[in-house]
Amino acid sequence: MSVTAAEGFVASGVTAGIRPSGLPDLAVVRSVPRAVGAAVWTTNRVQAAPVIVSKRHLEVAQPQAVLINAGCANAATGMQGEADAVASASALARGLGLVPEEVIVLSTGVIGVPLPLRKVLDGAGAAVAALSPDGGEAAAGAILTTDSGPKLAVVSAGGFTVGGMAKGAGMIHPRLATMLVVITTDYPLAEGEPETFLRAAVARSFNRISVDGDCSTNDAVVLLANGASGAERDDETFAAALGEVCSSLARQVVADGEGATVVLEIAVTGAATTAEAEAIARRIATSPLVKTAAFGHDPNWGRVLMAAGSAPFGDGYAQLETERLTVAFDGIEVFAGGAPTGTVPALSGAVCRIDLRLGLGAGVASYLASDLTYDYVRINAEYTT
Amino acid sequence: MSVTAAEGFVASGVTAGIRPSGLPDLAVVRSVPRAVGAAVWTTNRVQAAPVIVSKRHLEVAQPQAVLINAGCANAATGMQGEADAVASASALARGLGLVPEEVIVLSTGVIGVPLPLRKVLDGAGAAVAALSPDGGEAAAGAILTTDSGPKLAVVSAGGFTVGGMAKGAGMIHPRLATMLVVITTDYPLAEGEPETFLRAAVARSFNRISVDGDCSTNDAVVLLANGASGAERDDETFAAALGEVCSSLARQVVADGEGATVVLEIAVTGAATTAEAEAIARRIATSPLVKTAAFGHDPNWGRVLMAAGSAPFGDGYAQLETERLTVAFDGIEVFAGGAPTGTVPALSGAVCRIDLRLGLGAGVASYLASDLTYDYVRINAEYTT
Repeated sequence: MSVTAAEGFVASGVTAGIRPSGLPDLAVVRSVPRAVGAAVWTTNRVQAAPVIVSKRHLEVAQPQAVLINAGCANAATGMQGEADAVASASALARGLGLVPEEVIVLSTGVIGVPLPLRKVLDGAGAAVAALSPDGGEAAAGAILTTDSGPKLAVVSAGGFTVGGMAKGAGMIHPRLATMLVVITTDYPLAEGEPETFLRAAVARSFNRISVDGDCSTNDAVVLLANGASGAERDDETFAAALGEVCSSLARQVVADGEGATVVLEIAVTGAATTAEAEAIARRIATSPLVKTAAFGHDPNWGRVLMAAGSAPFGDGYAQLETERLTVAFDGIEVFAGGAPTGTVPALSGAVCRIDLRLGLGAGVASYLASDLTYDYVRINAEYTT
Repeated sequence: MSVTAAEGFVASGVTAGIRPSGLPDLAVVRSVPRAVGAAVWTTNRVQAAPVIVSKRHLEVAQPQAVLINAGCANAATGMQGEADAVASASALARGLGLVPEEVIVLSTGVIGVPLPLRKVLDGAGAAVAALSPDGGEAAAGAILTTDSGPKLAVVSAGGFTVGGMAKGAGMIHPRLATMLVVITTDYPLAEGEPETFLRAAVARSFNRISVDGDCSTNDAVVLLANGASGAERDDETFAAALGEVCSSLARQVVADGEGATVVLEIAVTGAATTAEAEAIARRIATSPLVKTAAFGHDPNWGRVLMAAGSAPFGDGYAQLETERLTVAFDGIEVFAGGAPTGTVPALSGAVCRIDLRLGLGAGVASYLASDLTYDYVRINAEYTT
């Protein structure tokens, strides 16, 4: 059901011919009643044209619809790219009886290739005609690139529903909305409120995952809220439901990380500060040596120590004292009191949990990461050539 | 000739039985006349026992000999590891008529495994008996782990010689001496001077290379200078020769990076500051997406933009303006004035040069990196299991 699980939303996914594969590549999501909304964007200094244009739109209007294309990122495409993004938004707005600024445009795919505008405009027309309260899954299928399948999440609670879809398998790393995500809800929010809820949920989900440590030029998490459920306000329940949808989608993205076979759950506790816990967890999550060891089902805590001990923080590294450190794989302590315990746990599952207890303070952070595999190399060495 | 190219140095390499492969795994380098020396160490917060012990030694004595073992890093081995490192240094000192503090010990190999002390002591005895002015290549061969072969460099100039050997193919990343390197020279230096020259040379060589962005617990660059050439002081010529040896060894390490098929030469100019140029070059050098593209001979400048635009600097990212940016692959401009040029250079060589001109200021930095390949994954997924 994804983005049409909540009341008052319609969606569709069509084949516009942008992806050479001939797979569905254009999706539209729309709120039928007036909605309020917000987005969290990539923090990359290089921002794709749809990001630049959609940010402008959000400054002047509440978003009512989202147009997403796969197959072309429309990034690093100069002024022409911005003009194409504006033209795409305008075309969808015309088809839906909206003003252009009420449309958010998102693109994913190869960087530096001009948007095939004619195909996008024709596709948008077909997508408008196909809009349906049952279109959530079709939309979720039309935003994929190297993903192995659609990523959906729905939580219903307190008389309202939060549903979402995500796309993303590579260039997944925090300090951004790490992929394309659209979340819809029929919970009643006022203007400005979606951003507050969304930022809090993203910080604990999409900003704590890493496939390859790379941060895309395009990524976005969009939230539309139309109040169509008629539910009473219960912000705590809503925040929990939104968080659950975000966490579920984030985990699906990691599990579907390009070439991934293992999800690494990294938990750092006892760091001097929370910021240092985050730095250490992030460093472990992005270490190629830790990630190849995970692929080899090797409880190589030596590489975990190496990564933890070189986590950039401030002008140096996050604090760590080897003698106070405890490391466990899948709950089994392998390193304690500055020396190995001698235990070598057998790792075999699709999930590998790594716990680091630093013994320095109250700083806590967790991270999800995928392993680094032959298939990651294959997918990314062959992607555009 | 490596470490015995300069006058007054002897070296040897023997098989002590530490590496399961049965390959040579223990080397000794000694200056016969009294030498002065210095070392640059890993900055990792987790430091191996030989690093901790050798640092102590350097505080109280000038180094006269270096003992290096492969096959076991003696890292994360607690107090026992330090005791083993001290015992190794003491044994070599006894064999050479030195005090223990005049010996530097270096180890490389698996982390967290106790040093097989008996094998090291027996091996040190055999290595002392084998010391020879022709032993430089044997020593260089006995310090390897996943390296495909020894790394040697010799420069003679102004009546003196600088020679060196290096080991390192993985866990190669700056903020440290990124591997084990021993450099010897018969140039006359006084106490304290080796450190000054060494730090300057390392900053422009070993600290500007990256195989996998990981920073080892063990790595070191050691310089011994004994003045045996009788050459006149010419510090400029010496600094240049030392720099050349360091750069040659650093490049050999990258070219031999685990699984590497392509050396990436990354040059950033026109950054707002030198520090930002370094941050951007480093970010590109460590991006898995850039490195897999290089493996695929794909001039994927979109991934270069993505990496450049998310180079961590201060609390955010290094400055970059897409419209001012020019990117060239192998000298051919692919991106200029905020948009692609439309040219797609054919990449095929073992070297790929990436030039980024930012158009913001005078900041300049360069970096060498290896590509990310199937073999990198194979080597590191299978290393300890």
